[in-house]
Amino acid sequence: MKVTALLGERFKDAPSDCTIESHKLMVRGGYMKNMASGIYSLFTPAKRISKKIENIIREEMDRIDAQEVMFPVVMPASLWEESGRYTSIGSEMARFTDRGGNRLVLGMTHEEAAVHLARNTASSYTQYPFSIYQIQTKFRDEPRARGGLIRVREFTMKDAYSFHTSQEDLEKTYQRFYDAYVRIYKRCGAKNVIAVKSDSGMMGGSVSHEFMLLTDIGEDTLAICPECGYSANMEVASCDIVNEPGEIEPLEKISTPNVKTIEGLRHTLGVDAKRFAKAVVYQKNSDDSYIIVFVRGDLEVNETKLRNHLGAEVHPAAVITEDSGIVAGYIGPIGLPEGIPVVFDRSLCGIESLVCGANEENFHLKGLNIARDVGEVEYVDVAKVFEGAVCPVCEKRSITIKRGIEVGNIFQLGTKYTKSMNMTYLDRDGEAKNPIMGCYGIGIGRLMASVCEESCDKFGPVWPISIAPWQVEICNLRSTDEGVTKVAEDLYDELTRRGVEVLYDDRDIRPGSMFADADLFGVPVRVVVSPKNCDAGVVEVSTRDKTVKTEYSIGSAADDVSALVKELLSKYEI
Amino acid sequence: MKVTALLGERFKDAPSDCTIESHKLMVRGGYMKNMASGIYSLFTPAKRISKKIENIIREEMDRIDAQEVMFPVVMPASLWEESGRYTSIGSEMARFTDRGGNRLVLGMTHEEAAVHLARNTASSYTQYPFSIYQIQTKFRDEPRARGGLIRVREFTMKDAYSFHTSQEDLEKTYQRFYDAYVRIYKRCGAKNVIAVKSDSGMMGGSVSHEFMLLTDIGEDTLAICPECGYSANMEVASCDIVNEPGEIEPLEKISTPNVKTIEGLRHTLGVDAKRFAKAVVYQKNSDDSYIIVFVRGDLEVNETKLRNHLGAEVHPAAVITEDSGIVAGYIGPIGLPEGIPVVFDRSLCGIESLVCGANEENFHLKGLNIARDVGEVEYVDVAKVFEGAVCPVCEKRSITIKRGIEVGNIFQLGTKYTKSMNMTYLDRDGEAKNPIMGCYGIGIGRLMASVCEESCDKFGPVWPISIAPWQVEICNLRSTDEGVTKVAEDLYDELTRRGVEVLYDDRDIRPGSMFADADLFGVPVRVVVSPKNCDAGVVEVSTRDKTVKTEYSIGSAADDVSALVKELLSKYEI
Repeated sequence: MKVTALLGERFKDAPSDCTIESHKLMVRGGYMKNMASGIYSLFTPAKRISKKIENIIREEMDRIDAQEVMFPVVMPASLWEESGRYTSIGSEMARFTDRGGNRLVLGMTHEEAAVHLARNTASSYTQYPFSIYQIQTKFRDEPRARGGLIRVREFTMKDAYSFHTSQEDLEKTYQRFYDAYVRIYKRCGAKNVIAVKSDSGMMGGSVSHEFMLLTDIGEDTLAICPECGYSANMEVASCDIVNEPGEIEPLEKISTPNVKTIEGLRHTLGVDAKRFAKAVVYQKNSDDSYIIVFVRGDLEVNETKLRNHLGAEVHPAAVITEDSGIVAGYIGPIGLPEGIPVVFDRSLCGIESLVCGANEENFHLKGLNIARDVGEVEYVDVAKVFEGAVCPVCEKRSITIKRGIEVGNIFQLGTKYTKSMNMTYLDRDGEAKNPIMGCYGIGIGRLMASVCEESCDKFGPVWPISIAPWQVEICNLRSTDEGVTKVAEDLYDELTRRGVEVLYDDRDIRPGSMFADADLFGVPVRVVVSPKNCDAGVVEVSTRDKTVKTEYSIGSAADDVSALVKELLSKYEI
Repeated sequence: MKVTALLGERFKDAPSDCTIESHKLMVRGGYMKNMASGIYSLFTPAKRISKKIENIIREEMDRIDAQEVMFPVVMPASLWEESGRYTSIGSEMARFTDRGGNRLVLGMTHEEAAVHLARNTASSYTQYPFSIYQIQTKFRDEPRARGGLIRVREFTMKDAYSFHTSQEDLEKTYQRFYDAYVRIYKRCGAKNVIAVKSDSGMMGGSVSHEFMLLTDIGEDTLAICPECGYSANMEVASCDIVNEPGEIEPLEKISTPNVKTIEGLRHTLGVDAKRFAKAVVYQKNSDDSYIIVFVRGDLEVNETKLRNHLGAEVHPAAVITEDSGIVAGYIGPIGLPEGIPVVFDRSLCGIESLVCGANEENFHLKGLNIARDVGEVEYVDVAKVFEGAVCPVCEKRSITIKRGIEVGNIFQLGTKYTKSMNMTYLDRDGEAKNPIMGCYGIGIGRLMASVCEESCDKFGPVWPISIAPWQVEICNLRSTDEGVTKVAEDLYDELTRRGVEVLYDDRDIRPGSMFADADLFGVPVRVVVSPKNCDAGVVEVSTRDKTVKTEYSIGSAADDVSALVKELLSKYEI
């Protein structure tokens, strides 16, 4: 492809609303154009990268015997009513009515469609297991579209669904997808991707993993143990603590006028925050009834874990009414109004003497010993993990907190969808059973942007050759010179003939501008053809990542460049 | 791929709502599953065919220097308001509101998106011409979804847009697309495709062609001249007639009590229908005002041509009010109420003596000579063409009427979109001008179904090898026999290793069922491995289209089958 024929412009500066590097560079480089919040058109370079990522994914899906199918973008609401998600999913799902008054939705995921396609067809246990996948457009009415292609509303996704007759069989396939995902990231040149345990959220099911590309600009927070490799999304990471018990003391009511915060109490009493039983008040979304969580004074409550423990949606109490009997700022476990559920985080376990509220304006208690003063309580894990917490696997105080972008996820769904949508098969024993499902997703655009975020310098992306829009860029520094142009064009033709993907900058512009654009194109191998080099009988060859800088003689340049491309590609083969 | 692992079932009978062959066979063959009116999921065989068609299209688009890009499915209403189509398109366009209250639409075509992507970028005449295309999902809320994939609401389409600085340049590119389309159909194995002139409809612009696959079940009616190759969609085909003038007669009012139809008049007066000036009454959609069209008694009015002539939407008069002064059944050109526009079709030109209504209950006129009795009138072409009409090109009475499925279209759009959406470039002369556009579409699913409609027998599709889901099917007639299975599996492995696409029927079922399924898969080359053949040291090889039926020795079967596949593929290469 010649640059003169390529639609799109490169810019020196990025718009001010681009806050992260990949977004800036992909706008500056003419990769995409914003049409509405979270909705983009892609120019040719980005489309070419997408196609390469899609092809790598296809090869890896085929390798694990997944079959490519195609589900519709627009689906009838009735299908989503069968699974119950038409009501359980909120305004992220786009809904509309057709000319006949039928309610339709835009697919944001395709579990329902997968069950629709497979049910009635896979009616005998002999037809299991099987995996189907598609690469298709999805729409999710994301309130916080941001970061260019990192968080959008419309996106292309590979989503796969597997069906099984036993949990063991699901686990085998789950592991195959896990391994395929590891290969996909490696082949796409994503360097720092780890799999972390995660919350299943709206997908349902129990076991799930997210594949996280580690980067400071990531939206997700992860707890990682560098000692043993344990990792989990902050949302579900266990918070393990070893407390120093301290001395047993008598329970004593103390006057603390107008001191309502941990900070204030620390100051007034001179006691470490780790010695407080902090109360945090939540309300159930369903009826606004109160729930009180006690957690160690230096820690925070993890709402996802709390929600999972309660099996109900909750939110931090917006207001604490007077008739609730809760004395805000002075809440403690002794003498609370009847009927308010209480949760004790396990960070309080093993501390012999605590400070807490007295449930009375201007008074706290000290010397609280939960076993002695409250009785046997169930300690549950609802605290946010923190840097230096104890690893739940290797038990060292080694937890570090990192940030990551979710570039894929895999879920064990159980029978959530097959049961609600009445998909059955006849088992070996003659009984009708619901198949067990898994589902597996990768967003193409987000992966592209994430690789850019990880592989770039301030001048532009440094695309891995496996997904680069082109493999080689030829820069003709004197397109007005016939001799120079002949060398450049011959090389362009010769490389193209050999199947090398070449971008040829044939414009009559200053070398500085041409190189600035080349940096934004991020093509791995650059060949510079200039009058000076031509006189010396050579072309200048370098790689975008600066690991190669050399000259090839004009006569052998096509051979040598092809060989270099082959060598670079081989690094991404598995 | 092994049939035991393939999701999908084959059926003996088609559902009763399948009225055309391709729909029946593609449902019976497990190609697709209906989810809602005009909305389908595709099983693997159909997805594989789609991908092959898409790849052929990509290659042909690349060959004419079109660049692949990607537009969004969901677009802001504001973009469609710029072009005016947000209001001019009716309920075919799906519309919804996002969580922020913004109005969005689903793309049914992407002229607006193409202009959005290109404007501001292609700002100098030096950057023209260029062509961009995408292959993407579209949604059109079609009221008459029918015929399986022939007329759906959601479909995958290749749509391309070209931009030019002159009409001549557009015409050059238009011709390149035209030629590329011819190659695409040939390479996809569509045999009877012709290009016909067509109405531009909601796309705007003037010159356009539809590519029609000729078949009796086609929804479109075409006028074709077998003598010179002229062809046009019935909607726009000119209706050329050479009238025999007949004798001049005096104008005479005749009593025709209660005779209001041409048929009745023919009977009463014994005059050929060709000697009547038939009146047809229309109303403008905008204000229900009347328009009267006079056409030769044996002909019909073509509403599309009438609409184009008037530049306004019209419909046949639902009711003729008494106060209009129009005397239904007795309408003629002399003595009509003032102010009613009248259109004379050119089928009336050159007839010296006509019968027409007298604009008076129970009376007609005979001997009407329009030039003498009405004066100079403008004759326009608004009649429906008919079998045996005069070809407007070679002037023979050779027009034949055929039916076809539209499998592609190309339009010259002019500046309709670039003007309304304010896309300009700076021309050589320093002036800002609007680029001239062309647009070019092919529906993937419809092309697949059309090829099936054209290439099938009562047992199943006969896929051209260029788009067949697999190139070879191996039928193992005794999968319980180790020796037979070894021959089949070795051949499967050996062919797969050579890059041949093989479907391997490894099921333990009766040969009759296996062959019935094979006919529905429609794979071009069939290899039968049976105990009897194995004993003779051979495999049985035949083609789905019955042109080849032979045996290959087991030892050379991989070579021989590969060679046969290569030979068959070569027929579709250009």
